[in-house]
Amino acid sequence: MCAIVGVYDSPNASKKAYYALFAMQHRGQESTGISSADGKKITLVKKRGLVTEVFDEDAFDKLQGTSAIGHNRYSTAGNESILDAQPVFARYKLGEISVAHNGNLVNKQEVREALIDRGAIFQSGMDTENIVHLIAKSQEDKLVDRIKDMLQKLEGAYCLVIQSRSKMFVIRDRYGIRPLSLAKLEDGGYIVASETCAFDLLGATFIRDIRPGEMLIFEHGKEPKSEQIFESDYHPCAFEYIYFARPDSIIDGTNVYESRLKMGKCLAKEQPANVDLVIPVPDSGVAAARGFAEGLGVPFEMAIVRNHYIGRTFIEPTQAIRNLKVKLKLSPISSLIKGKSIAIVDDSLVRGTTSKQIVKMLKEAGAKEIHMRIAAPEIKYPCRYGIDTPTQEELISAKYTPREISDSIEADSLGFLSIEGLKKSLGEHRSYSLVSFDGNYFAGGNAKSPGCSDLE
Amino acid sequence: MCAIVGVYDSPNASKKAYYALFAMQHRGQESTGISSADGKKITLVKKRGLVTEVFDEDAFDKLQGTSAIGHNRYSTAGNESILDAQPVFARYKLGEISVAHNGNLVNKQEVREALIDRGAIFQSGMDTENIVHLIAKSQEDKLVDRIKDMLQKLEGAYCLVIQSRSKMFVIRDRYGIRPLSLAKLEDGGYIVASETCAFDLLGATFIRDIRPGEMLIFEHGKEPKSEQIFESDYHPCAFEYIYFARPDSIIDGTNVYESRLKMGKCLAKEQPANVDLVIPVPDSGVAAARGFAEGLGVPFEMAIVRNHYIGRTFIEPTQAIRNLKVKLKLSPISSLIKGKSIAIVDDSLVRGTTSKQIVKMLKEAGAKEIHMRIAAPEIKYPCRYGIDTPTQEELISAKYTPREISDSIEADSLGFLSIEGLKKSLGEHRSYSLVSFDGNYFAGGNAKSPGCSDLE
Amino acid sequence: MCAIVGVYDSPNASKKAYYALFAMQHRGQESTGISSADGKKITLVKKRGLVTEVFDEDAFDKLQGTSAIGHNRYSTAGNESILDAQPVFARYKLGEISVAHNGNLVNKQEVREALIDRGAIFQSGMDTENIVHLIAKSQEDKLVDRIKDMLQKLEGAYCLVIQSRSKMFVIRDRYGIRPLSLAKLEDGGYIVASETCAFDLLGATFIRDIRPGEMLIFEHGKEPKSEQIFESDYHPCAFEYIYFARPDSIIDGTNVYESRLKMGKCLAKEQPANVDLVIPVPDSGVAAARGFAEGLGVPFEMAIVRNHYIGRTFIEPTQAIRNLKVKLKLSPISSLIKGKSIAIVDDSLVRGTTSKQIVKMLKEAGAKEIHMRIAAPEIKYPCRYGIDTPTQEELISAKYTPREISDSIEADSLGFLSIEGLKKSLGEHRSYSLVSFDGNYFAGGNAKSPGCSDLE
Amino acid sequence: MCAIVGVYDSPNASKKAYYALFAMQHRGQESTGISSADGKKITLVKKRGLVTEVFDEDAFDKLQGTSAIGHNRYSTAGNESILDAQPVFARYKLGEISVAHNGNLVNKQEVREALIDRGAIFQSGMDTENIVHLIAKSQEDKLVDRIKDMLQKLEGAYCLVIQSRSKMFVIRDRYGIRPLSLAKLEDGGYIVASETCAFDLLGATFIRDIRPGEMLIFEHGKEPKSEQIFESDYHPCAFEYIYFARPDSIIDGTNVYESRLKMGKCLAKEQPANVDLVIPVPDSGVAAARGFAEGLGVPFEMAIVRNHYIGRTFIEPTQAIRNLKVKLKLSPISSLIKGKSIAIVDDSLVRGTTSKQIVKMLKEAGAKEIHMRIAAPEIKYPCRYGIDTPTQEELISAKYTPREISDSIEADSLGFLSIEGLKKSLGEHRSYSLVSFDGNYFAGGNAKSPGCSDLE
Repeated sequence: MCAIVGVYDSPNASKKAYYALFAMQHRGQESTGISSADGKKITLVKKRGLVTEVFDEDAFDKLQGTSAIGHNRYSTAGNESILDAQPVFARYKLGEISVAHNGNLVNKQEVREALIDRGAIFQSGMDTENIVHLIAKSQEDKLVDRIKDMLQKLEGAYCLVIQSRSKMFVIRDRYGIRPLSLAKLEDGGYIVASETCAFDLLGATFIRDIRPGEMLIFEHGKEPKSEQIFESDYHPCAFEYIYFARPDSIIDGTNVYESRLKMGKCLAKEQPANVDLVIPVPDSGVAAARGFAEGLGVPFEMAIVRNHYIGRTFIEPTQAIRNLKVKLKLSPISSLIKGKSIAIVDDSLVRGTTSKQIVKMLKEAGAKEIHMRIAAPEIKYPCRYGIDTPTQEELISAKYTPREISDSIEADSLGFLSIEGLKKSLGEHRSYSLVSFDGNYFAGGNAKSPGCSDLE
Repeated sequence: MCAIVGVYDSPNASKKAYYALFAMQHRGQESTGISSADGKKITLVKKRGLVTEVFDEDAFDKLQGTSAIGHNRYSTAGNESILDAQPVFARYKLGEISVAHNGNLVNKQEVREALIDRGAIFQSGMDTENIVHLIAKSQEDKLVDRIKDMLQKLEGAYCLVIQSRSKMFVIRDRYGIRPLSLAKLEDGGYIVASETCAFDLLGATFIRDIRPGEMLIFEHGKEPKSEQIFESDYHPCAFEYIYFARPDSIIDGTNVYESRLKMGKCLAKEQPANVDLVIPVPDSGVAAARGFAEGLGVPFEMAIVRNHYIGRTFIEPTQAIRNLKVKLKLSPISSLIKGKSIAIVDDSLVRGTTSKQIVKMLKEAGAKEIHMRIAAPEIKYPCRYGIDTPTQEELISAKYTPREISDSIEADSLGFLSIEGLKKSLGEHRSYSLVSFDGNYFAGGNAKSPGCSDLE
Repeated sequence: MCAIVGVYDSPNASKKAYYALFAMQHRGQESTGISSADGKKITLVKKRGLVTEVFDEDAFDKLQGTSAIGHNRYSTAGNESILDAQPVFARYKLGEISVAHNGNLVNKQEVREALIDRGAIFQSGMDTENIVHLIAKSQEDKLVDRIKDMLQKLEGAYCLVIQSRSKMFVIRDRYGIRPLSLAKLEDGGYIVASETCAFDLLGATFIRDIRPGEMLIFEHGKEPKSEQIFESDYHPCAFEYIYFARPDSIIDGTNVYESRLKMGKCLAKEQPANVDLVIPVPDSGVAAARGFAEGLGVPFEMAIVRNHYIGRTFIEPTQAIRNLKVKLKLSPISSLIKGKSIAIVDDSLVRGTTSKQIVKMLKEAGAKEIHMRIAAPEIKYPCRYGIDTPTQEELISAKYTPREISDSIEADSLGFLSIEGLKKSLGEHRSYSLVSFDGNYFAGGNAKSPGCSDLE
Repeated sequence: MCAIVGVYDSPNASKKAYYALFAMQHRGQESTGISSADGKKITLVKKRGLVTEVFDEDAFDKLQGTSAIGHNRYSTAGNESILDAQPVFARYKLGEISVAHNGNLVNKQEVREALIDRGAIFQSGMDTENIVHLIAKSQEDKLVDRIKDMLQKLEGAYCLVIQSRSKMFVIRDRYGIRPLSLAKLEDGGYIVASETCAFDLLGATFIRDIRPGEMLIFEHGKEPKSEQIFESDYHPCAFEYIYFARPDSIIDGTNVYESRLKMGKCLAKEQPANVDLVIPVPDSGVAAARGFAEGLGVPFEMAIVRNHYIGRTFIEPTQAIRNLKVKLKLSPISSLIKGKSIAIVDDSLVRGTTSKQIVKMLKEAGAKEIHMRIAAPEIKYPCRYGIDTPTQEELISAKYTPREISDSIEADSLGFLSIEGLKKSLGEHRSYSLVSFDGNYFAGGNAKSPGCSDLE
């Protein structure tokens, strides 16, 4: 996932970027960074940790200027180097540059190899470094032209915020896979952010979404200038609605909570269940469960409590507490569950391991029957536009039918939303990226490698 | 509030105490501590911070033995000394002792002065030190008799877990103001804890609540021995159900979530509202809002999202983001709210400042009308059995009528649950402590000082 | 050892206490604390760590007032509790009190038992708690009389600084075992400190040493009032000169560096050596080695370099670097040593393990002969006035002759300063505490237990 | 300064690199890093802080393999980015590479601009990044040839350790400005390090110094292969002997302590003083002061004590303690100084500010006369082969005569070692880099810019 933000021509730009990143913390908790520019130089602070942990008065003392860009990085296995945090800063021919990137480049490896062939060095594992190199290697005289040059070489999902010492450039790929919106700040200047929830916290006024294939150029004292770099081929990622985004965000005109409600209602039609009670897996399953309950006309209760005190480093128990991992996070309210037929609604089902533990936990709490409902279609393919998708091997729906999975997780039944149902819930005015469900890659790259699991 | 736990005759006692404290983190986040005993000596680790922050492998290496007691301390203003963490350990005539205490002694000051007159020194501000002194000063030969001696001198609310090098003593005051329950551990031994949610995490089997006025004595290899020290005068604190306890806990036979549902339903009868949507203030208002919506037959939505990433040290903004403090924590989903008449349900209303910010936030999100409903009666009196209650001065309901408060927080209406309604919701089989609502002190101490605001 | 300081009637008292403790860091590195009083209340900050690590702006914000006392605690095995840091603060009948103590009470155990018999509780392992209890238990009406009462019950070595909310009391035991001096601060007020090096840093003007058996009473706006509580029986500890104190301190009129020079010269007469070069074990052996070289008329070189970057937590090597522990700290300059007969001078010899490693290291560096000279007599008895003395079992000189030790550490010869030589070096105008050397206890307690190894 | 180390074909290579860096901590305290290679990949750990602070068990768990290179970085103003720590790691066409560099490239700016012109990006301010880029851009097929290619483009001072996944390359510039030596490890394999004190700690056997212009190639199971890349033009930096190196190191065949002794003796001849006592500014002036005292035949004492507890972040005093900064570090022993004529010997004099404070401090301690002697010539030019040299503006000797400086620091006299004297002390068999004293650049680059103050 990841979150990006850009603040331009606004006082205390780095503090605004900070609050925006705070509001988008759910999109990435591994590391965070902000770079700011004051017209003369770019300063950068980035570190492993949460937004509230990384930035303090000292950081803001450094991060002067009226322009700031920032990034929250999602946890990715194995790469713990500080060099893998964003934004990526570099000195190059035209001066200084800082880049924050949300997305996944499908031709990352080819581009990297081509760059390396031409003598480039890579100090991190992030494809953001590709982008910086492509800008630096361009023969164009102006940064804006170098960026355009670079964009010709990228394939895949990307939202970019690029900062020079005095300007800011914002780009969204032609498919609009990742969200990116523009707003006006109360005390002057603009902000772009991955989710509109950042605007709400800052009291910024939403203007519009960045268009697929569009570049916005920010210059001091001017209105942002728009250029359509690529023809739009709009395929926003369905997972933003299903799972990634905060429910109060509005992505490409659609409210996330409401779309989840609709998925739940649709699921009720497609996969009804004869139950006494509908309960969500908190917090991400709440809206769909509400819709499912409404669709069925069955009571809804928050019968599982989520513990929010789980810290980063949890001690491995020497004793065997059964299902400890899920129990530390989720606690059922037995009195609501005991003796009842329960529909438990989750946003998606990937490996099936957590679902199995939840079913067990509900049985121990006394549920008579447990019908699991998933407010998304079966995930059968890894998504190369996203990140951290398991390989096809690990996707339980790639190997087993719902019935088989239901048996293996010991539920009484299991039902998924259909792809058609998902499309209807999201609105049929637009084509969504449904790669994980239908394996259908709409964007460049080698169509023969749907199983590609390149992670950012 | 605070949480206490005691584990006896069980392997890895300190790790079990740890998981129990983790499950009860909501009862106190300021500091935490565990002492363990191995028959020969007592070891203690306590520190400011969350359970997951304070204990690590080093701590557990020290905390050996099959008996462990622990404590989570609620944040209290002004007293930041490490000496104010619990358990309190001391060497005294009969050896070593460690004490964890949840509650508030109403005669704390008198006892402390009497002790000081007799030459005692106090190194902290906690009344737990009173308890240790009273045990140490007793002339009895046996610890159990010294404890009984001490108990004669305490007035107020207390649940105690007392650990010697080989035994454990558990006491609940005659009113049963604070909760305390007993369970059997899977791999042997017993656990007592403030809330049953600790048992669920550990897979321990609930046996029963500790009776008001009861002492349990734990000796190696024996069943816990019960003594009724005081005649029961049962008045459990209504606030445990209204606000303090976790919804999945069962306190004195009543499930917390269900009692909140009932309060909501009862509130719907007493204070109905002509609204399009019922929404809770998350997380504590969820159950009551569910009940309220059901009572009214009006749709319910989780239309306010809570941000759980708020860290301990948050940066003060230099810019004026309106209502920043509440906005960092709560975010409305505008599309659900816009143009609608909303009933917003909270668990209680103390000073009114947060309510005012929430009303503003909902208006900015486009609500047509905002009807605030409080699933508890008006708080007119500070509670001397509890802690951290504001003084009467600060209690908005002590000075203003609901109508006046409604105007001041700029809501369209405001309704509280009646005291009668609260009693009905909790069940009329029992008398509850309702001091905050009716100012009626049932327990010892000077009846003339209902405004007493001694905090633990 | 430990260091204590008291600042009275002076602006920024806690910062002055801080600098004084910094100057006396060599006397104790385990924990440090300062309490300050502003006439109305006492505030305390104490923690494990070095002075520069424990105190920051936040600490000084708390530590307001014109009176402050402080303490550096020497590392003692096994007791790592924060409760074992000083000063010890307590509320008692007359209000608030804070006590810092340097020394070791020989009747500590009896006093503690008597107090415990009377119902006292002890939360730490420090005998400072005895002192606070004795003051609290006294029946006298005034603090000064309670202190006198308490002093009647102490036997052993003690320098005390006692702070009430408005006054300060300073006491040195009748033997004057530990050092304590008085100075005037440049911008008003007084300071007492264990060593005069604290005065030099602060630019304070030395007035005089506190007299054995004297109490100084500090009241706002008055000259310090002196009372002779006990008849003086002056026996300052010889180890302060041999090893403990900083070389630039002047203790009871005698400069430490100069007394070490004299010990070295005297050692040259008593235990000459036919060598090419005299080298010290840095840093504590430097002065004596200088004197020894001068006495012999032989060249002196700093032929061993000391590494000052050794941190607190050092990684245990998996590979076997020979003598790693001593090599991390000390490095010989081979070219100065190779082929030469070397006299290596150390301040004392306790267990002999380090000496053995040093001899080995010098041999590996090519020394032809190694003659070890110790600028102190043989340590044959544990000292109950000091702390952290090994038991008699561990004292190599209690069991072996110098010749036997010389063989076991593989030196070519080994010579100690005689007790007579030490006396001469220190000046014969005064009687010194030489317990470690002659086993002769001059002060109270049971003369039959010279082997008592009570540590503070 | 900085320190580098390379360990090859030896078990626990990263731990050996760690101990070597620990022994060379004096060469750089800002940041430290180690990369290790196991034949398949390179792993890197680097961070701000001391060696003992940065590396722990977790770090060594990562740093597997039998080859490891490391670096200690000297504190340089303004550049606090973690990206400015070494070694620098990169992926490039031939795989992975890690580079540690000690020195200063005089043509750094030109190379960087040329690289940037060709599209390179720079993520740090270190010239080490130049080196990695030059290797990556080379068209050669083998790493060894790419390194040679790169070396053709470097001008200035450099010692390099370069690690690939299976080999190690070690290069010293043709002038041999910075030291670098080779030794054999006890349990197999080789080590190269900036100073021989690293070998002594590890028990490694010194083989020889790396020759100016030489490259050593380490391959598994083979003897290191030597290639003379450039003709030697030997000019080791005189400052290594004067100030940088540890006194127990042997650099290019000359023992550092002994060379300092000689400088002191020579200074005694050139700048005698009629004094009662010679004292050093500890620790760096000790050896020269010893030589000076011997040369004069006047007593020597360690009459200034150095405090080694100074932490990293020291609190600024609100009160004005005169000369606080120097007093926190240095304390005079008044009784040795009072009434005497003193010669105080320091290793060098740069800005004169500390010297002035030392003179004041000695006067306050009662010195009758103070004759300052500097065991190095007047520093009149910034050195572009070194680092962190002040600009010519700040060099007091660039603007004033010794007499004028003596007056301004309020000494009774001031004398410097002559350039001739320095040459004699170091031995006339070799030509030393004396740029700071004679402004005479012997190495490439623009001879017209002796004032160049490029820092690494």
